[in-house]
Amino acid sequence: MNIAEIAEMAGVSRAAVSRYFNQGYISDEKREAIRKVVEETGYRPSVQAQTLRTKKTKMIGVIVPKVASGTIGKIVEGVLSVLNEHGYQALLAVTQNDAKKELEYLTAFCDKQVDGVILAGTVFSAEHKRILKNLSVPVVIVGQQLAGYCCVFHDDYHASYDVTKLFLQKGRTRLAYISAILQDQAVGAERCRGFQDAVRDMGHGELAQRFVTASFTLASGYEKAGELLEKYRDLDGLICATDRMAVGAVKCLRERGIQVPSQVLVAGHGDAEMARALSPSLFSVRYFYEKSGQIAVQMLMEQMGHGEEARREVKLGYSLVEPEI
Amino acid sequence: MNIAEIAEMAGVSRAAVSRYFNQGYISDEKREAIRKVVEETGYRPSVQAQTLRTKKTKMIGVIVPKVASGTIGKIVEGVLSVLNEHGYQALLAVTQNDAKKELEYLTAFCDKQVDGVILAGTVFSAEHKRILKNLSVPVVIVGQQLAGYCCVFHDDYHASYDVTKLFLQKGRTRLAYISAILQDQAVGAERCRGFQDAVRDMGHGELAQRFVTASFTLASGYEKAGELLEKYRDLDGLICATDRMAVGAVKCLRERGIQVPSQVLVAGHGDAEMARALSPSLFSVRYFYEKSGQIAVQMLMEQMGHGEEARREVKLGYSLVEPEI
Repeated sequence: MNIAEIAEMAGVSRAAVSRYFNQGYISDEKREAIRKVVEETGYRPSVQAQTLRTKKTKMIGVIVPKVASGTIGKIVEGVLSVLNEHGYQALLAVTQNDAKKELEYLTAFCDKQVDGVILAGTVFSAEHKRILKNLSVPVVIVGQQLAGYCCVFHDDYHASYDVTKLFLQKGRTRLAYISAILQDQAVGAERCRGFQDAVRDMGHGELAQRFVTASFTLASGYEKAGELLEKYRDLDGLICATDRMAVGAVKCLRERGIQVPSQVLVAGHGDAEMARALSPSLFSVRYFYEKSGQIAVQMLMEQMGHGEEARREVKLGYSLVEPEI
Repeated sequence: MNIAEIAEMAGVSRAAVSRYFNQGYISDEKREAIRKVVEETGYRPSVQAQTLRTKKTKMIGVIVPKVASGTIGKIVEGVLSVLNEHGYQALLAVTQNDAKKELEYLTAFCDKQVDGVILAGTVFSAEHKRILKNLSVPVVIVGQQLAGYCCVFHDDYHASYDVTKLFLQKGRTRLAYISAILQDQAVGAERCRGFQDAVRDMGHGELAQRFVTASFTLASGYEKAGELLEKYRDLDGLICATDRMAVGAVKCLRERGIQVPSQVLVAGHGDAEMARALSPSLFSVRYFYEKSGQIAVQMLMEQMGHGEEARREVKLGYSLVEPEI
């Protein structure tokens, strides 16, 4: 069954059938005739043929470092909720935190002729920037700021600054910090810089170097908390770049008989569900991950319509989450 | 730039260029001539044109109830790891646990002409079965058993049975159970039945009705644990259908000054990261979620090749996870 046959059965021109399926102008009489034939035959136009004609695939490539993570899960749900409203669907690629795979998918998506790309990136190498520059479709970066690109990200610096300041104001002046890798601009570098600037501004510059770097796991937070305890026996506060690290750290502290939060106050970032699982729950920072995914799609849609004019950088706020006792 | 122009520049026929791009037979001489032109021009064949010709989109629709969940995250990562090896990509749809959306996406994916569908379903209504029966492409169901369909699922019944038996053997004879909704065959009905059969088989039939139903959240586990404590003041063991519920329950118990695990031993299912965040960690069951995603793709690929002959039901095992102190 094809358009020509539908046209013949309905007694109209092929152009009329085409307009029918593409929401073009068509008389009520012809519309009704076509509708009847379509209903009787169950005919549906081929999406691929439409794509060849319109050059639009109605698909967006979404590249994320992993899926089994609350943070990324929220971003993806935000993306999908708005994409679907716009009649688009998401082609999802997971890179397992492998920068090489990120580059492969960026290239592959262009071959697949998606209409746009949303990239939840972590590290931007020179190669990333080269490929991003040459992308034939609009791209929005979510979770990281990258100059010259449409991006939506979080105010990681001030969030970390505020948590640190609050810890010092609470009298926790023998603080330490567990950082993520500094190549990760948002979660690594910006949050660590927030910690360092806050301790200096509050007159505790001696704390600025009291930090170690962990990977994004419970086990790593556990291990690094142990190292810090060996080194700083007077520790009374511990701020971690992510909730997952912080939950690992709390486990380490408790196993050594250290009371949390009375002896050591612990904070993370991200308002993860597992942070709320602790009793009392963790001190944390809420970022608007789902919102960032929604905004990313809106920006992408605007770029697809207006090009350069639509380019902007959006920095979202945050709120501190005090522990529930 | 199109195939005809490439053919002219390389001095070969259009058919030769087509065979070149479709891995057909072609002489070394012609292959080299075409390769040079392709390299010089940067030509890439249109995926949509290929699709029209081969009727294959090289895309698989993946429908999941949510993404921001460790369980689903692991399934999706398993699916993607194998899909990508096969040169396929995933179109992802999230239903937010809305059965109506599940039906919409099933229909929509057929319109998009994906080559197959993977459905991580929860509840199967008559409408589900009708639509599944009429799908024009192969489908694999993951996480649930559905007679007559390719599916890969977990031995929820025996896992729950074993946990319950172990609790009774440890002397926890004043048990209760927090169930998921029984319309969810795997996580709800099967796990609850495992609990009930185990208490009866072990001579504690009076416990079979000591269960309540919760939703899939921390807060619901917290609330239901409170209800059970009011009702069964002698409670010494609590088994929950999911780790998330169990973590909420532990929070409730601890806030009431009840020692976990010494006074009340608590178990969940799923070996979730948040279960390992507790000290000591939760008693749990490990299912092979990532593996189930991988197997789902392999079964789908086989179905796409061999049709009915490839249909099978695969039940995966489990292992009990004792708490780490």
